[in-house]
Amino acid sequence: MKKNRVEAFSDGVIAIIITIMVLELRVPHGEDFETLTPLIPVFLSYVLSFVYLGIYWNNHHHMLNAVQSVTGAILWANLHLLFWLSLVPFATGWMGENHFAPVPSALYGLVLLMAGVAYLILQQLIIKSQGPDSILKKAVRRDWKGKLSPVLYAAAIALAFRWEWITLGLYVLVALIWLIPDRRIEKILRSGAQE
Amino acid sequence: MKKNRVEAFSDGVIAIIITIMVLELRVPHGEDFETLTPLIPVFLSYVLSFVYLGIYWNNHHHMLNAVQSVTGAILWANLHLLFWLSLVPFATGWMGENHFAPVPSALYGLVLLMAGVAYLILQQLIIKSQGPDSILKKAVRRDWKGKLSPVLYAAAIALAFRWEWITLGLYVLVALIWLIPDRRIEKILRSGAQE
Amino acid sequence: MKKNRVEAFSDGVIAIIITIMVLELRVPHGEDFETLTPLIPVFLSYVLSFVYLGIYWNNHHHMLNAVQSVTGAILWANLHLLFWLSLVPFATGWMGENHFAPVPSALYGLVLLMAGVAYLILQQLIIKSQGPDSILKKAVRRDWKGKLSPVLYAAAIALAFRWEWITLGLYVLVALIWLIPDRRIEKILRSGAQE
Amino acid sequence: MKKNRVEAFSDGVIAIIITIMVLELRVPHGEDFETLTPLIPVFLSYVLSFVYLGIYWNNHHHMLNAVQSVTGAILWANLHLLFWLSLVPFATGWMGENHFAPVPSALYGLVLLMAGVAYLILQQLIIKSQGPDSILKKAVRRDWKGKLSPVLYAAAIALAFRWEWITLGLYVLVALIWLIPDRRIEKILRSGAQE
Repeated sequence: MKKNRVEAFSDGVIAIIITIMVLELRVPHGEDFETLTPLIPVFLSYVLSFVYLGIYWNNHHHMLNAVQSVTGAILWANLHLLFWLSLVPFATGWMGENHFAPVPSALYGLVLLMAGVAYLILQQLIIKSQGPDSILKKAVRRDWKGKLSPVLYAAAIALAFRWEWITLGLYVLVALIWLIPDRRIEKILRSGAQE
Repeated sequence: MKKNRVEAFSDGVIAIIITIMVLELRVPHGEDFETLTPLIPVFLSYVLSFVYLGIYWNNHHHMLNAVQSVTGAILWANLHLLFWLSLVPFATGWMGENHFAPVPSALYGLVLLMAGVAYLILQQLIIKSQGPDSILKKAVRRDWKGKLSPVLYAAAIALAFRWEWITLGLYVLVALIWLIPDRRIEKILRSGAQE
Repeated sequence: MKKNRVEAFSDGVIAIIITIMVLELRVPHGEDFETLTPLIPVFLSYVLSFVYLGIYWNNHHHMLNAVQSVTGAILWANLHLLFWLSLVPFATGWMGENHFAPVPSALYGLVLLMAGVAYLILQQLIIKSQGPDSILKKAVRRDWKGKLSPVLYAAAIALAFRWEWITLGLYVLVALIWLIPDRRIEKILRSGAQE
Repeated sequence: MKKNRVEAFSDGVIAIIITIMVLELRVPHGEDFETLTPLIPVFLSYVLSFVYLGIYWNNHHHMLNAVQSVTGAILWANLHLLFWLSLVPFATGWMGENHFAPVPSALYGLVLLMAGVAYLILQQLIIKSQGPDSILKKAVRRDWKGKLSPVLYAAAIALAFRWEWITLGLYVLVALIWLIPDRRIEKILRSGAQE
């Protein structure tokens, strides 16, 4: 039951974040096609962040499936992850309204990096709580995505001040890498259920 | 359990979309009846979009009742649907504030069209996941509503630049067509339960 | 299961309405006590609407406890109720910012009246769906609150243009009448469970 | 079932409060590091309030675990708590935008104090509803945190007009005291389950 409430709360927060983000797409004054033009970068950064939050919701969903009991530390690690995700709308809006300028693009990467780190901390705490036979540990054994993403984010932040389009390209790349849903946990869980 | 979380997340997102849409109805300065006059088109477009989102929630509700297990593809098709629905408040506000002008009315239709397409994709993926004996396939066999709506939306978009009131009339018409809740799935499900 | 999703969706919408209402309390510019003074009527109307939404959530909660199955008509009657409740933040903000001026106060009453009517429609549909032995019908047999409230709202609307403080007093009075939770349904349900 | 809906509604409201609070972090005009500088106090007060709401969610979660049945009085005491929590975004925004000036800092403390009092009232009503063998009563027997916090808030409010940094320090201190999750209830519950 406890786990259900953590899931419900996380779902609620992620659902609200993903939805209030669209409020940055402010209704323009004017009724022509041209009034939409300055909104295009805001829209594109909205699409990117929507995909990222979808990925987080998706993976969070899979990861919590593998959890048996929620400790105080897991609760706070989860809130810590939600904290960084809650900054995504701000970073998205700032990046979009400044047409992917260096500093806003770097800040966007920083928020993604911190969310990624928060996700790894949550993962480690769940593994630790499950003891030596952790089902999650087996599932993420070759977690090259989780290890590669922070490196790519860090590279994107560093490059933002010289080649901002490479930065943006890296954000799209990381999203594409993760877009393939995390079938590893699903597979292990399924084989565990069959035994 | 997995399905429950998808339902809960979708409910959350649709509930937030339907509610933040009312924020476009900005509190006017002035305390007379007249200060409400410019808000009338914003209010009417709010009513229309509220009905549309109610229809989507309603049909989504029925469709997911027929789902047994949620695959990664279904999860993403569902997020894709929620993405287009999340743009409804923006399109509603723009159309309302510009008193149903051609371009905003066409954009509104485009968002509805894309949401309709996203709904059909989700439906197809669920049918595919259920195999040859899909309960949903039987239920939507004569899905004339689902096939007619995109045609009417496309006509509405094309007509927006000449006869914007026909466009608006078509949006109302499609809403009325759907307002009758989707009893087909319910009926098939019920007969399935009785066998 | 179906009922659970209707409850969850309604809870979500009411929770969002009650919370975004606080956004009308805009953070003032200035750091003195005096900058809060113009916010006092906005705050007081927020308190009043918070209580009203709490009453609706509470009674909705009790009423749905008595529901066995949700029909399409009940679903739409519920959305109709949520529609009028979604206009409460707008009416609250307009009334508060205009210091309880006649027209905004009357509009506030109109929204409450429509929500009250929508609640009664929902109640009738549930009773009808339950047939002659409706548990809800017994519970609301002497529903003097439900019958008195619309009369008081109508009186408040009519009086708003002459004696606006009586109008406000009537809104407070109706809230106080309802504040006492609806123990009738609870009692009947409990006695039904004991038989 | 009843309890679940109270939990779900509370989770929804707290999730929305925690998320709309980030809307006070307005996207700045300008693309340099310097444009972020005036946002730093707003950000810091956001972090503080995020932690406070996390603590409330966490403790609320534990407290409701100990509840068997929800009375009307408990429902309203819960709404009363949510009311004060709903004012946290306003108080946070006002304090942050005025760089922790005396009056806004005192108001922030007042909202925290009232939320703390509302929490204690809810706790008392639950204990009362459980009768002499209340499991919650045992759990909070030595509730030094709950008794110390209001004293510290009151001190912080009084000191705000002279030493505003001590006020801020006290808010951080109370948050740190509570950050350690309430293991007392968990422990008692667990030992009760083992008997």
